Amino acid sequence: MSAETDQKWTDNPELLLRVGEGFRLDGVDARSIPGYGGNKKSGRRDLKACIGGLDDLQERLFAAHHDAKSGPSVLLVLQAMDTAGKGGIVRHVVGSVDPQGVELASFKTPTREELAHDFLWRIRSHVPGPGMIGVFDRSHYEDVLIGKVRSLADDEEIERRFEAINEFESELAKAGVRIIKVMLHISPDEQKDRLMERLDRPDKHWKYNPGDVDERLLWPDYMKAYQTVFERTSTESAPWYVVPADRKWYARLAVQRLLLDALKDIDPQWPAADFDIDVERERLAES
Amino acid sequence: MSAETDQKWTDNPELLLRVGEGFRLDGVDARSIPGYGGNKKSGRRDLKACIGGLDDLQERLFAAHHDAKSGPSVLLVLQAMDTAGKGGIVRHVVGSVDPQGVELASFKTPTREELAHDFLWRIRSHVPGPGMIGVFDRSHYEDVLIGKVRSLADDEEIERRFEAINEFESELAKAGVRIIKVMLHISPDEQKDRLMERLDRPDKHWKYNPGDVDERLLWPDYMKAYQTVFERTSTESAPWYVVPADRKWYARLAVQRLLLDALKDIDPQWPAADFDIDVERERLAES
Repeated sequence: MSAETDQKWTDNPELLLRVGEGFRLDGVDARSIPGYGGNKKSGRRDLKACIGGLDDLQERLFAAHHDAKSGPSVLLVLQAMDTAGKGGIVRHVVGSVDPQGVELASFKTPTREELAHDFLWRIRSHVPGPGMIGVFDRSHYEDVLIGKVRSLADDEEIERRFEAINEFESELAKAGVRIIKVMLHISPDEQKDRLMERLDRPDKHWKYNPGDVDERLLWPDYMKAYQTVFERTSTESAPWYVVPADRKWYARLAVQRLLLDALKDIDPQWPAADFDIDVERERLAES
Repeated sequence: MSAETDQKWTDNPELLLRVGEGFRLDGVDARSIPGYGGNKKSGRRDLKACIGGLDDLQERLFAAHHDAKSGPSVLLVLQAMDTAGKGGIVRHVVGSVDPQGVELASFKTPTREELAHDFLWRIRSHVPGPGMIGVFDRSHYEDVLIGKVRSLADDEEIERRFEAINEFESELAKAGVRIIKVMLHISPDEQKDRLMERLDRPDKHWKYNPGDVDERLLWPDYMKAYQTVFERTSTESAPWYVVPADRKWYARLAVQRLLLDALKDIDPQWPAADFDIDVERERLAES
């Protein structure tokens, strides 16, 4: 993995982006590139250079644990305002590893059946099993974000949900799920540009939804709701990372690095053979 | 898509690989490269050159249909003896498009719950929805292959399954599912080499299963069972393709081409905006 040592990171983004005591979302510049000393060109090169390492670690994780009843997994939770680039992360970061080791779950407006259950019901069935990398494109956090902003639930219920979320995530962490919660943070101006591009290009119309502008008008409320989410649910075992995302290349590079660091920390090893290698060589040779 | 015109295909593999009247599996050379006039180097280059076109078509398919109640989808069924390269197809062909548009289902030994239902029960829930590309890594065909070879079902039951499969697939095709059934065909010698490599490399031990040699000893029975499968289930609406797979680069290129042709034939178009573009431009500008 020598390619990684040439990278232009000057500081570990894990520490810089992690939501800790006293964090203020309104203090984060969405155009900034914390910890990175390069530019777009080097950023893209570094992203590419790390694909091999990520791939290797993912395969080891899968090899070592996917058939087991318990064992480590990784869960990447992606939250953001529209157009912030969740899809690009799925595509260019997660999409660079073997799809057989990835479980992708996209949470839309709950169905009637889902609404008939507790808000975590539909989430639980998508928790990645041992050896897998799970990705949540939106998540249970919608229930305390849009839930709060759109008054879909009263304060008491929102409060109950925060407690339920912390309990749920702590339970997952104990079971071996490494949880990485990422909010891709864009500025309202950048969002306006990106939405305008969707209107300008016929091949992007399908990505545009008039409801996006309605949500956009509630921007300050959403930021306030995110701030509360961070204060209530950024824990030791399931921390939040706020990733500046006006520069797509930086956001991708930073999330790749968070994934890489989590996997390196798990340090999965190729499993030892559970059969006699010499015996098998002989059987195979004779077959 | 000018890159595609430079390719070294001399004939359309769709026609050459398709199982038709009088097809004999024992007449297929697993090392051959039907319809292709290049070599490994050009094959890899051509595979890369077509990624953009596949990507574009997949995005159009998704854009045009994924939110609809009905509409076209693609289902790639992969069957093969062990080590033939199903995983490589998933990784290098399917894995080159946006993971958000792909539904991957891997069918292992049925669980107790699955065995309590009809053999198609577990399959139905994985049929790709409108706009999606579905991939079956093994499939309902295991139930007429290993089912036959290992005598897990009697002849009458196998017969019933063939009829159920044809009915099921015809129903899917009518609902808009473009079915591409691929058998990756390797030779016993090539399999021996690939299994030996798994024994030689500690990072490959996890992919080796002593049961693979047991299956290998039943090779002629499996080929006979495949022959029957082709005769009974290669239909107009759900044809089989036998892809020689001793050369991995050829198998990947050929399956990519089958996918490309299916998507081109569906010819998905960017959907028209279902909102007033000028009104939205104004709303957005004012927001």
